[in-house]
Amino acid sequence: MSNPMKVVIVGGVAAGPKVAAKVIRLIPDADVTIVEKGEFLSYAGCGLPYYVSGVVKEQAELMSTPVGVIRDSVFFQKVKNVHVLNHTEATKIDRVGKRVQVRNGSNATESWLDYDKLVLATGGDPVVPSLPNVKLENIFTLHGVHDAEGIKTLLSQNKARDVVIVGGGLIGVESTEALVEKGCRVTIVEMLPQIFGMLDWEIAKLVEQHMESHGVKVLTGTKLESFEGNGKVEWVVTDQSRLSADLVIIAIGVRPNVELARDAELEIGTTGAIKVDQHMRTSDPDIYAAGDCVECHDLLTGEPCYVPLGSTANKQGRVVANNICGESDIFPGVLGSTVCKVFDYCVARTGLSEKAAVTQGYEVVTAMAPAPDKAHFMPTAKPLLLKLVVEKKSRRLLGAQATGPGSGDKRIDIAAMAITSGMTVDQLANADLCYAPPYAPAMDNIITAANVARNKLDGYMVGVSPMEVHQVLEEGADFVFLDVRSPAEYEQVRLSGTTLIPLGALRGRLNELPKDKEIVVFCKISLRGYEAALILKAAGFDKVRVMDGGIAMWPFEKESGPQ
Amino acid sequence: MSNPMKVVIVGGVAAGPKVAAKVIRLIPDADVTIVEKGEFLSYAGCGLPYYVSGVVKEQAELMSTPVGVIRDSVFFQKVKNVHVLNHTEATKIDRVGKRVQVRNGSNATESWLDYDKLVLATGGDPVVPSLPNVKLENIFTLHGVHDAEGIKTLLSQNKARDVVIVGGGLIGVESTEALVEKGCRVTIVEMLPQIFGMLDWEIAKLVEQHMESHGVKVLTGTKLESFEGNGKVEWVVTDQSRLSADLVIIAIGVRPNVELARDAELEIGTTGAIKVDQHMRTSDPDIYAAGDCVECHDLLTGEPCYVPLGSTANKQGRVVANNICGESDIFPGVLGSTVCKVFDYCVARTGLSEKAAVTQGYEVVTAMAPAPDKAHFMPTAKPLLLKLVVEKKSRRLLGAQATGPGSGDKRIDIAAMAITSGMTVDQLANADLCYAPPYAPAMDNIITAANVARNKLDGYMVGVSPMEVHQVLEEGADFVFLDVRSPAEYEQVRLSGTTLIPLGALRGRLNELPKDKEIVVFCKISLRGYEAALILKAAGFDKVRVMDGGIAMWPFEKESGPQ
Repeated sequence: MSNPMKVVIVGGVAAGPKVAAKVIRLIPDADVTIVEKGEFLSYAGCGLPYYVSGVVKEQAELMSTPVGVIRDSVFFQKVKNVHVLNHTEATKIDRVGKRVQVRNGSNATESWLDYDKLVLATGGDPVVPSLPNVKLENIFTLHGVHDAEGIKTLLSQNKARDVVIVGGGLIGVESTEALVEKGCRVTIVEMLPQIFGMLDWEIAKLVEQHMESHGVKVLTGTKLESFEGNGKVEWVVTDQSRLSADLVIIAIGVRPNVELARDAELEIGTTGAIKVDQHMRTSDPDIYAAGDCVECHDLLTGEPCYVPLGSTANKQGRVVANNICGESDIFPGVLGSTVCKVFDYCVARTGLSEKAAVTQGYEVVTAMAPAPDKAHFMPTAKPLLLKLVVEKKSRRLLGAQATGPGSGDKRIDIAAMAITSGMTVDQLANADLCYAPPYAPAMDNIITAANVARNKLDGYMVGVSPMEVHQVLEEGADFVFLDVRSPAEYEQVRLSGTTLIPLGALRGRLNELPKDKEIVVFCKISLRGYEAALILKAAGFDKVRVMDGGIAMWPFEKESGPQ
Repeated sequence: MSNPMKVVIVGGVAAGPKVAAKVIRLIPDADVTIVEKGEFLSYAGCGLPYYVSGVVKEQAELMSTPVGVIRDSVFFQKVKNVHVLNHTEATKIDRVGKRVQVRNGSNATESWLDYDKLVLATGGDPVVPSLPNVKLENIFTLHGVHDAEGIKTLLSQNKARDVVIVGGGLIGVESTEALVEKGCRVTIVEMLPQIFGMLDWEIAKLVEQHMESHGVKVLTGTKLESFEGNGKVEWVVTDQSRLSADLVIIAIGVRPNVELARDAELEIGTTGAIKVDQHMRTSDPDIYAAGDCVECHDLLTGEPCYVPLGSTANKQGRVVANNICGESDIFPGVLGSTVCKVFDYCVARTGLSEKAAVTQGYEVVTAMAPAPDKAHFMPTAKPLLLKLVVEKKSRRLLGAQATGPGSGDKRIDIAAMAITSGMTVDQLANADLCYAPPYAPAMDNIITAANVARNKLDGYMVGVSPMEVHQVLEEGADFVFLDVRSPAEYEQVRLSGTTLIPLGALRGRLNELPKDKEIVVFCKISLRGYEAALILKAAGFDKVRVMDGGIAMWPFEKESGPQ
C-alpha cells in the first residue's frame, strides 16, 4: 500500500483504545483516529464503585496504566501514535463514501473523516426508566466519572443517609458495600423475585441474606412507580410502599448505543445490540464493532446474548484489530462468567443456571457442595458454596455458581474452562488442580461438587432441593425430616420440624424410623446426609432423599441457640 | 453374591480410607478392613508444616473431619462400618490363596486376612541418605506426626537456633516460613543448581531471592557430605563448607513403599513405584493400588512419573473403589500441578517446564507476563509473575509456572484445565474468565500471558531470556541494552549497563540509537518494551529483541536508589 491504512474508531473507553493500540502494533504506520464524545479515554468504568467507596483514592488511577501514566490524548499520540479527537461525537456514517461525520463539542464544527476500516465501540448507556420525577436531583446512575463525583460529593457532605438502589444487578449490588461503610441506610429495590437474575433463586437468596446481615434492606418483587421530592429526591414510591431517600442510584441495566449503526442501516441483533459475525464484522465488511455495543453469542447454546463487560470488550478489541490488519481471528463467544464482591462474599457464576438450562430444554442434574475453600484445618479456610448444573445425558458441565466468603472466583474460572472445552463431570473430577493446605482442600471444592453430581447421575444419591422441602413443610406433609448432625451442631443452629439422629448413632437407632414414610435427610453440607441415606437404603428404607447442600445452603429461616 | 465382598486395604492415611469409605457407600454390606501399621488414620500429612508453625494448633485437627470429628478406628467402625486394624503391619500377600498375612505390633501375633479384592495404599517414606552420622539426634524428616512433635519440642525449648534443611523441594521450603517465624536461622542445602526442580531456573531464582529477603540462606549446587556432633547434631558438612546446626530437616524426597508388592511379584514401574493400569489395577487383577505407592502417567507425554500428592491419592482412591464395586472408572493421569506457600509468595506450576519440554523434544515458545493479579488500581492487587510454555507447531499450552504474592494458584489451575483439554493459546486468550476489579484485571494475567505467546508465535515479538542477556553482558558483548521506563522508575531500581530512553520520548530520539547493533529492549514488565521494539522495527532497526518479563522477572542483581 502506498497510503497508510486509515482506521477510524468511534468510542474511546475500553474496546476502542484496545483496537487502536493493537492496530498500531501490527501496522505501525497505520493512520488511526479515536473519536470520543467525552473527555476521558480508556478509563476503567468498573472501578467506579471503588472510587465512590474511597478504596481507589484518585480518579486518575482509573485512567492510568499500571505504572501510573495517565492515558490522555497526549499519551495516545506520543506513545501509541494514535490521534484522539475527544469532546467529539460521530453523527453519521456515509458507507458508500467510506467516511464518518463528526461534530466537535467545543466549537460545534462538523467535518468528515475518511476511513478504510471503521470500528464502532460506542458502548452502552444505563437504562433510565421513564417514571414521574426521574430527573429530580440526587438521582444518579453509576456509569460515568460524573455520576461517581456526584455521589461522592453527597457522601462527603453527609447528605445521603437513606439510599435507595434501584436494581439488584451487578452495579447496584457492587455499590452497596461502599455506601454501608459510609453509614448510609441502603435499600435495594428489585422488580424480580430475586436479585442477581443470572443466579438460581436459592443462591441469590443466600446472597440477599448476607446483605441483610450487613443491614441492607432487600425488597424483591417490588416495582418502582415514581419519585417524589422538591427539587431533590425525597421519596421513592413502589407498588408496596414509600421509601425515604436522599440518594437514588438507578442500576437496572445497560442498553447498547446503536443509533449510529442503526442510522447507517447496519444490522441490529435480536438483543438490540449491533450484530457481528465471529470476526466482529458488522453487516458492512468495512465496519467492525466491539465492546458494550455488540451482541455476543453464548458459547454453549449458540444463542445471541448481551453481556456487556470490560473483559469481553478488551478481547474483542484485539480480534477486531487482528482482522483489520489482515489476519483471521475470531471471538468465539461468552459464557456469561461474572464475579461480584458483596461485602465479604465472593459471588460468581458461569455458563447456564439451572433455570436457564431447563428453559433451554436441557435435562439436568444439579450438585450443591458447601465446603471450606482450603484445607479445613487452616485458620484461613473460608466457607464456599458451589452449585453445578450438569446435562444428564452427556454428563457435561453446563454451569456453575458460587457464593460465600471463600475463593469462588477461582472455582468458577475452573468451571468456565471445563465448560469451554466440553468436559464431563467425570473428567472434571480427575482434573489435576494444585493442592496445598493454604490454597485448597485435598479434594478441591469443584472436584467434590463434580463427584456429588456423579453420585446423582449414577443413581447413588437422590437429591431434593431445599425449595421442595420447604414447600412440603409448609403444606404440612407427613415425612421425616432427618438431621444427622451432632447434638452440639443442632444446639447451635437447626431447621424446624426435624428429627435428630447423629450419623454415628444411626445404625443402632434404625427402629425409630418408619419404613413407609418418606425420609429427607441432611447434615451441615449433606455429606453425612448422603452416608445416612446409603445406610437407610441398605437397611430397606426405600423412600430416602438427601437435601441438596444441607443446612449450609438452606435459603430459608433457621432456628439458633439453645432450645 | 451370598457372602459380602471382602476388601482388605493396606494403609490408612489418604488413599486407603478413601477407598474404604467409597466401597461402603457403593456396597453397604461389603466387609472392608483397613490395616494400618501406625496408630493414626486418615491424617493430613501435608498439614504437618502448619502444625509445626502453630498455624494449626492441635494435632487432632489434622485427623478430624471438617466438622471436628476425629477419624479414629471407632469412628471408622461406627460411622463408616469399616473395620480398622491399627498398629498392624501387612507382611505377606498370598496371591494364590487370596489372603494377606498381618502382624499385630502390640502383641506380635500373626494372622491371615482373606480378601476378594486387595488394595495397596502403602504410601511412601522420606528418603534418608546413608551419610555418616545421619542418625544423630535432632535430625528429622517431616513425614509423620512423630517428626512434627520432635521439631516442635526443640522449637518450644528454644533449642533450634541454627536449622539446616536438606533439600529444596516442596516439604523443605514449606517448613521454612514456620522456622523463620520462630526465630531460627535457616539454611537450605540443595545439590542441584536451583531449588524446586520442577520450575525453570529463572523462576526458581526469583523464589530463592524472595527467601533470601526473609533471611533464609539458600545454598544451591551444594552437596551434603556428613553430619557431626556429640549425640546431637552440631554440624552439617557439605562439599563447600561446614554449617552450624541444632536441627536438621531432611527433605530430599519420598520413596514409594513397594516391599509388600515386590515380594508378591507384582510389577514395579520404571520410577520404582507400583505399576498400575488406568483402572488402578496392579499386574494382579484382584489387587489394586493407589496413592503415594503407585506410579502415575503424565497426561501430556504419557510417560510414567512419580508425583506423590494427597490430592492425587484421594482421586485414585475413588477410582479404585468404583472399579472394585463393578463400575469401570479410570484415572487419566497427572500434570504435576503443584502449589507451595513460600512466605508471602505463592509458587505454583503445572504441565511441562521449558526445560522438561525441550528434553521431551518439543519445540517451544515461552511467554513471561508479570502483572498485578487484580485491577491495578485496587489496593489489594499484588504482583504475579507468570511463565507459559507453548508448543510452537500446535500452539498448544504445555506448561505454566507462577510466582509472586499474587493469586498464582488460580491461574495455574486455569492453565491445568487448558492443558488437560488440549487448548491452544489462541483459545486460552479468549476464555471467558470472571472479571471484577477485586478479583482480576480486565485482561486476566493468564490471558495476557497467552497473548504474549501469540505475539511471539506470530512473529511480532522476538524475545530473549534474561539468562542470555546476562551472559552476553558478562561476556562484554557490544549491544544496546535499552530501558524504556520513566526516569522515576529508573531511579528506584535498574539494571547495570543500560541506556534509558522512556517510551514516550523514543520516537523523537531514534537518532541516538545505532542501526547496526543489536538492541535488547525492556521495561518493568516488557509491555512498553514490546511497543518500543515495534517502533524501532518500523523505523528500520532490524536487530531488536525484547527481554522476557522485563525487570520484574530479572533473576540477577539489580541496582537501586539514586545514582
